Amino acid sequence: MLALTMGDPAGIGPEIARTAWQALRGSGPAFVLLADPALGGTPVACVDEARELFADALPVLPTTALSVPPVPGRPDPCNALAVTGSIAEAVRLATTGAVEGIVTGPIAKAVLKQAGFPHPGHTEYLAALTGRPGQAVMMLAGPSLRVVPVTIHVSLRRALDLLDADGIVRVARTTAAALRRDFGIRRPRLAIAGLNPHAGEDGHMGTEEDTLIRPAMRRLEADGLDLIGPMPPDTMFTPAARARYDAAICMYHDQALIPLKTLDMAQGVNVTLGLDLVRTSPDHGTAFDIAGRGVADPSSLIAALRMADSIARNRKAA
Amino acid sequence: MLALTMGDPAGIGPEIARTAWQALRGSGPAFVLLADPALGGTPVACVDEARELFADALPVLPTTALSVPPVPGRPDPCNALAVTGSIAEAVRLATTGAVEGIVTGPIAKAVLKQAGFPHPGHTEYLAALTGRPGQAVMMLAGPSLRVVPVTIHVSLRRALDLLDADGIVRVARTTAAALRRDFGIRRPRLAIAGLNPHAGEDGHMGTEEDTLIRPAMRRLEADGLDLIGPMPPDTMFTPAARARYDAAICMYHDQALIPLKTLDMAQGVNVTLGLDLVRTSPDHGTAFDIAGRGVADPSSLIAALRMADSIARNRKAA
Repeated sequence: MLALTMGDPAGIGPEIARTAWQALRGSGPAFVLLADPALGGTPVACVDEARELFADALPVLPTTALSVPPVPGRPDPCNALAVTGSIAEAVRLATTGAVEGIVTGPIAKAVLKQAGFPHPGHTEYLAALTGRPGQAVMMLAGPSLRVVPVTIHVSLRRALDLLDADGIVRVARTTAAALRRDFGIRRPRLAIAGLNPHAGEDGHMGTEEDTLIRPAMRRLEADGLDLIGPMPPDTMFTPAARARYDAAICMYHDQALIPLKTLDMAQGVNVTLGLDLVRTSPDHGTAFDIAGRGVADPSSLIAALRMADSIARNRKAA
Repeated sequence: MLALTMGDPAGIGPEIARTAWQALRGSGPAFVLLADPALGGTPVACVDEARELFADALPVLPTTALSVPPVPGRPDPCNALAVTGSIAEAVRLATTGAVEGIVTGPIAKAVLKQAGFPHPGHTEYLAALTGRPGQAVMMLAGPSLRVVPVTIHVSLRRALDLLDADGIVRVARTTAAALRRDFGIRRPRLAIAGLNPHAGEDGHMGTEEDTLIRPAMRRLEADGLDLIGPMPPDTMFTPAARARYDAAICMYHDQALIPLKTLDMAQGVNVTLGLDLVRTSPDHGTAFDIAGRGVADPSSLIAALRMADSIARNRKAA
């Protein structure tokens, strides 16, 4: 059983929750939506009741009520407490064992920020709620590729300033542990991306491969990890190259996200590594521009629900 | 009729010239290899003779002789004059009208540099030979995507320092003109990539979109060009996004090359825009590691020959 948070009530979260339920009601995995029942679905009193109901209706476990009626496409900071309340309840259900994992619907960071929310996004809020600040790592996983960026939501220039060997080592270790525990890969193979064109071409086009990336790789190899790299960024995502590794450790946001979204746009899943609880989310935003029109694609949410279920099973089997 | 330069004689250039000829001898486009006949093929005295011979044998127009016998996989700077002589002769044939375009085999920049060659690569050497220094622009074109990087073979940090509005404007203008003249696209649509994650997200993750890219776009729109952007780099290469433009103007090497090679590895073609002569090349290097083993894939060279032929026809038809 999984918990699905509602996300921003003015975005596509509520409608893809319903279309994902239609797709999964027969086969599972089963999930319960954590939301104000005003958003739709059938209210339930507990997770057990949700499990019994799932084949027949979309079960909704009531969480913090909406303050104002949501208008599709027009987010309102007054509903911020309902949005964060749904997330906090999901964490409580997961950490008490009532659900096997949580899947989070898309939120609007700028809207929450207006309401005073101090975290940059889900990943950091979850790390804080579970007492693991700074431990969470973001993986994007699709059918063709898994990528883990070392630096994330900062400008490209700031990413260059922030990148260091410690960060690469921390992210690669967390990724290797998660590939074993969550994805059932006994001996994970990691590809470490170069930072510069042609991975620096022997220092002719940048030196970070020698000053940061190779030193980090030596520390990881001392752990016994199976690594290749620093790989030229432009050729490391071809089919032949992808066959050589289980996840790519990337140096900045777009180095990871360009190949992932180019290959697997509708199927990408965001997975939080390094936490005790299982958490995934669809790899897209609130899509305010199409919210409420019934055209939103639930594929990424369905993939996120299936992946959370698979991770939970792998952990149990271990 | 096209001229094909031999490239480094210790690389895969000579062998893919032969396998490309086998693939094209029936259908064309016809080409003549410019090389020392010691590398193989049937010597001819002039381009006309090559045209007559093409269906029956790979025609070779002798250029500067090799100084030492080539050993596959072991490049020798002593053969640098034979490598550059082939390129210079190709330019002479194109600028005198003896051939419609040139296709260049892969060279090893480091090896030529050892021999004193002062140009960073083909593109700059061709610009110098044709009296257009600084005018050449590199496009990578595959079946699914055309990309044009504004900054190229420099470190990522240096690319950030070099990027300016003038460069974006120059590259976008040259690209738009080439899409009209060389690709027969009457009203080209250009996508302008952002530099930062989410194209800066309103300045939260970088400001170059506002300080460099939008000012450049205003100048280009004043030319009457059809533009979209600054586009979030990670979502601009999905099938739906690609349907909206004819070429993507990218801010740095890997922003352009990661999606191109991820989508079209074997079919990518390097096209030099902004010169009077038609020039393409395969989008790969000398591959010294597999040279002489008969396993090199000629697909990119075949695509480069077909694209040079198509560009030459479009220019004639204009």
